[in-house]
Amino acid sequence: MKIYSQGEPLAPWREKLHEIIFEADTPAGKRFDVLLIVAITLSVIAVMLDSVEVIRFQYGGILDVIEWFFTIMFACEYILRLLSVRNPRLYALSVLGIVDLMSILPSFIALYYVGAETFLVVRVLRVLRIFRVFKLAEYLGEANTLMIALKASQKKITIFLYSIFIFVVVFGSVMYLIEGAENGFTSIPKSVYWAIVTLTTVGYGDMVPQTQIGQMIAATVMILGYAIIAVPTGIYSAELARAVKSEVSNVACQNCSEEGHDVDAEYCKYCGAIL
Amino acid sequence: MKIYSQGEPLAPWREKLHEIIFEADTPAGKRFDVLLIVAITLSVIAVMLDSVEVIRFQYGGILDVIEWFFTIMFACEYILRLLSVRNPRLYALSVLGIVDLMSILPSFIALYYVGAETFLVVRVLRVLRIFRVFKLAEYLGEANTLMIALKASQKKITIFLYSIFIFVVVFGSVMYLIEGAENGFTSIPKSVYWAIVTLTTVGYGDMVPQTQIGQMIAATVMILGYAIIAVPTGIYSAELARAVKSEVSNVACQNCSEEGHDVDAEYCKYCGAIL
Amino acid sequence: MKIYSQGEPLAPWREKLHEIIFEADTPAGKRFDVLLIVAITLSVIAVMLDSVEVIRFQYGGILDVIEWFFTIMFACEYILRLLSVRNPRLYALSVLGIVDLMSILPSFIALYYVGAETFLVVRVLRVLRIFRVFKLAEYLGEANTLMIALKASQKKITIFLYSIFIFVVVFGSVMYLIEGAENGFTSIPKSVYWAIVTLTTVGYGDMVPQTQIGQMIAATVMILGYAIIAVPTGIYSAELARAVKSEVSNVACQNCSEEGHDVDAEYCKYCGAIL
Amino acid sequence: MKIYSQGEPLAPWREKLHEIIFEADTPAGKRFDVLLIVAITLSVIAVMLDSVEVIRFQYGGILDVIEWFFTIMFACEYILRLLSVRNPRLYALSVLGIVDLMSILPSFIALYYVGAETFLVVRVLRVLRIFRVFKLAEYLGEANTLMIALKASQKKITIFLYSIFIFVVVFGSVMYLIEGAENGFTSIPKSVYWAIVTLTTVGYGDMVPQTQIGQMIAATVMILGYAIIAVPTGIYSAELARAVKSEVSNVACQNCSEEGHDVDAEYCKYCGAIL
Repeated sequence: MKIYSQGEPLAPWREKLHEIIFEADTPAGKRFDVLLIVAITLSVIAVMLDSVEVIRFQYGGILDVIEWFFTIMFACEYILRLLSVRNPRLYALSVLGIVDLMSILPSFIALYYVGAETFLVVRVLRVLRIFRVFKLAEYLGEANTLMIALKASQKKITIFLYSIFIFVVVFGSVMYLIEGAENGFTSIPKSVYWAIVTLTTVGYGDMVPQTQIGQMIAATVMILGYAIIAVPTGIYSAELARAVKSEVSNVACQNCSEEGHDVDAEYCKYCGAIL
Repeated sequence: MKIYSQGEPLAPWREKLHEIIFEADTPAGKRFDVLLIVAITLSVIAVMLDSVEVIRFQYGGILDVIEWFFTIMFACEYILRLLSVRNPRLYALSVLGIVDLMSILPSFIALYYVGAETFLVVRVLRVLRIFRVFKLAEYLGEANTLMIALKASQKKITIFLYSIFIFVVVFGSVMYLIEGAENGFTSIPKSVYWAIVTLTTVGYGDMVPQTQIGQMIAATVMILGYAIIAVPTGIYSAELARAVKSEVSNVACQNCSEEGHDVDAEYCKYCGAIL
Repeated sequence: MKIYSQGEPLAPWREKLHEIIFEADTPAGKRFDVLLIVAITLSVIAVMLDSVEVIRFQYGGILDVIEWFFTIMFACEYILRLLSVRNPRLYALSVLGIVDLMSILPSFIALYYVGAETFLVVRVLRVLRIFRVFKLAEYLGEANTLMIALKASQKKITIFLYSIFIFVVVFGSVMYLIEGAENGFTSIPKSVYWAIVTLTTVGYGDMVPQTQIGQMIAATVMILGYAIIAVPTGIYSAELARAVKSEVSNVACQNCSEEGHDVDAEYCKYCGAIL
Repeated sequence: MKIYSQGEPLAPWREKLHEIIFEADTPAGKRFDVLLIVAITLSVIAVMLDSVEVIRFQYGGILDVIEWFFTIMFACEYILRLLSVRNPRLYALSVLGIVDLMSILPSFIALYYVGAETFLVVRVLRVLRIFRVFKLAEYLGEANTLMIALKASQKKITIFLYSIFIFVVVFGSVMYLIEGAENGFTSIPKSVYWAIVTLTTVGYGDMVPQTQIGQMIAATVMILGYAIIAVPTGIYSAELARAVKSEVSNVACQNCSEEGHDVDAEYCKYCGAIL
């Protein structure tokens, strides 16, 4: 198939196809996206139900038909996607392209190797496309605010997660020395796993300290975990409060057309003109 | 019974009845509401106690009497409600109307089908009426602030819950592939259930990862769950802070037109003029 | 003993005693309070250790001596407290007075009824006196800010807890109907207990849903619990932010000597004078 | 080795060594720090893997070689550190110096006493050096903001943790009286441990209340734990919001002297003058 160079326009029918499949700002594009989400959701539910033994036993035949229906439908969609993009190789090697391919392959592989259809669960990853639909709706601004706050707090969260990581390694090792293999702390990695289970307040109970001193250390880890949960919440709250505050300002300067002014600003902070 | 048209006034005695039963701003209406809440609470406690085997064995007779006392009382109330509204069918088909009916029916059904009285627990739903009592009190403003913040954060929470949903489906499926039925992850829906139990830090411990790689993924889910709990908190905090802020200050100084004064302020804090 | 009327001054030695025992703003008063805290802490540790079987077996004799040492010491203190207050009956019937009495009685009762000394654990309640010591230190302002925010958020927290209560009763009842006694949900109160364990993300795992539909409802409760934890945090954060903000202002108006102005205030908000 | 007095300059080669090993603002110093972090991480992973039985059984020889490689490397580094500092004794007795020594000693001790190499896990504490690397990067400002907020909330957190401590002692004692040894609450310290596990919402499930009244008290502890998690979060959020706020704005307009401008602002947003 023809690979288009930078500025060259696509053939009209491919241009049109691209608009429907990849964009979401035309009525046809919106309809396609909504249909796709419904199809993905149904196919994921089918794969999920197929994994439940009693359901597979009773409705296995119908589920097989549904599986092949969606497999063929997604295969067609994959071919159309390849046709409509300017550079098919770029799409085929992108993350979404690989996910799209992986969501149809297992059905075909399962014809030769029994059991491969289990990997159809990767189809659930296609659900990630749903986030594109948010572009359609009035959710755009809201999601944007959430993302701005997440990005702004990224560095602080990184430092926090790094501290947590060192913390669980140190406490996990200490518990390995104190409790030992006879109380279920059979190795340092497993003790670190216990430390994470405890610090995050999940607390499965599959590994619990048995010794007095082990329980004291566990109590310390718990209270610390309970107290430091404040840190990511505090970080995100502060950034979100800032993002929400600046959410209201969507007035662009009439002089330099810069945006992002505070709500109480009377003059453009970039060029000094009256807003 | 007569159905009233839009503007037509109700008969005086039905008007009066409506005021007592449905409104809460007259002394009689307040008394009725408080009495109703007490009756609902007592009947719910009776149903709850009746479900405890040792108590039913010993005090079964008394509890039966109490049950019938409240059933007849609520039946009378239901009839009075039907009488006092302008359009009885509208009330009978409303959510609260259905709950009211369902909270008396099981007692009668149990006369023919033994065991139906268990469904009397739907009576607890009537407790939701208690929120009306808040209208009476000074709690109105406070509850209002909470609701304003909830409504303002609704869209953001929706996006957040949607992301969580995709997240647990993806991670649940991955765990199903890794751990498999031999470690208790018997199906994808059950693995998704595990992912929710873990992400929300509930951590029952009825399903725990056994493999090394499974424990690593579980640890990732936990830390992510621990970190992203910040998101709804941040969302709600930011919105509530905004709602609380506007709870106090809406008087502008007539001299300098600055806002943001405390509710107890008598003079403008920026220019000194009387507010 | 003499009961003093309203305005009448205490005898000088009782006045002095009162100052040492009840107040904390003289050097002698501070020393007494610190000593008392140390004594309470040590006696509580002794009672705690005495409850550990292996320690009681080995050091039972020493712990008995310590117990009686503190019992006699606290008995003397109790008598001195009775002596130093204006109205002994008022103190004896106050909460702190009853706690003080209850923390010495079990030792004496145990002379006649073996086992009563277990009730010495009520001594731990005396540790609550430690909060008085905070009065001494620079922690006063900080604790004050925390309390102001708690008081300001009290009504909102009440509404929140009430909603939670209705929520767990409704969901607990639903789970009782769905799971039933054969899966461990033996009664509605026990199912409500399960709902609380799940909603608060504690998740012991002693009661877990077994049916498919039960697990779906449980997942809903968890995600709701995970999402609504934002509410009390948001409430308290908003109020604390307000309290912290007003924390900085400790300038009193030179005209009307009112306090509590904002940091950016230039004029007194009560009388309009320049700050 | 020569001990230098206060003002006296170090020998040039020791000055140079100090710059590389202890500072991180020269290219050589940065390279050394990054290399050290990598070496520490690898050696910690080796110690962690060595604790897993199946891995030690299969790759024990290779892991021994790696262990000795890092031990000798860290020993050399330790000697160089001693050489490069002005006062070696001060370094040797500092916390980091002791950790550095303790991370090489176990290997040598294990030559005489089998099993001592387990203590090599103290090497993980060296990972704490990683925080120095943050100095290098743009993370400095962010980490600084986090620390400022932590310091500012220290007193409030102290009061909070103290209250929690009294709370768990009181509730643990009450549960010891109610549940008793037959339900697993064998001693007060163990019951306090249970109270911590419950309050922090960890909920292992190794100790659970069995009696009706015990479950009611447990439910109270849970709801309280769920509600008061708001307190540290609120504290930290409020302080962080303050710290984040001051992160951006410390330039005052030279015309109207208003503050609070964004970092990227070039003109005053209140009067339009150049900042």
